[in-house]
Amino acid sequence: MTVEYSEGMRFVGHGGSGHEIVMDAGPQSGGQDTAARPVEVLLAALGGCTGMDVVLILRKSKHVPAAFRIEIQDERATEYPQVLKKIHLAYVFSPDVPRDRAEKAIELSLAKYCPIANSLAGVAEITHELRFEG
Amino acid sequence: MTVEYSEGMRFVGHGGSGHEIVMDAGPQSGGQDTAARPVEVLLAALGGCTGMDVVLILRKSKHVPAAFRIEIQDERATEYPQVLKKIHLAYVFSPDVPRDRAEKAIELSLAKYCPIANSLAGVAEITHELRFEG
Repeated sequence: MTVEYSEGMRFVGHGGSGHEIVMDAGPQSGGQDTAARPVEVLLAALGGCTGMDVVLILRKSKHVPAAFRIEIQDERATEYPQVLKKIHLAYVFSPDVPRDRAEKAIELSLAKYCPIANSLAGVAEITHELRFEG
Repeated sequence: MTVEYSEGMRFVGHGGSGHEIVMDAGPQSGGQDTAARPVEVLLAALGGCTGMDVVLILRKSKHVPAAFRIEIQDERATEYPQVLKKIHLAYVFSPDVPRDRAEKAIELSLAKYCPIANSLAGVAEITHELRFEG
């Protein structure tokens, strides 16, 4: 993975997949707000990682959700270094997914398959909830 | 931060800045390769985070680099959960930046300012090097 400085506070990541990952800071930090902040990108990576696990597991039992999202709340230390202290993941599914299947898929992702959640669990307390909507 | 399931294995993150962060899996994992993988996105976030710190610090002494990139190599556990074990950051600058200024900026970012590096340092061994090119 190479992360290249562009201009202002803009950086562009290029990894093995060949797709760009762009980041920028807001004007108050000298950026031009052309892309997401690094901490947002980190939390999105966590959501994408565990979300893909869940879809992959649900797909095996033909229960791919019609709608699914993960809401992420984080709490960081107030003093430097402002490390992640807590992360809460709310998994919100459309009602077409059986609760026990959804629960099992989330547990497998958080305890075993998602490298990002399992890595961050070494530094932050990760909690989760499961909701249905629609 | 909300990470929403789109289709296939595609997820789209939306955070406070309002910018989308898109992720997808490759065809071998049921995706369509329309965007970067979550672990690439995580490593890009780390590079963007420490890179912005370095530029912000160098800017104060009027030493914004003409060119700058961060090369990231990671090593993960071979067994599940495949957590991050080692991360190596190579900071590569154009020769217009004084070495001592660059070293100081990197140290401040890794030891204090970058929340992502300081969080991941709790689980993975983070090493770095400094090079000049061009």
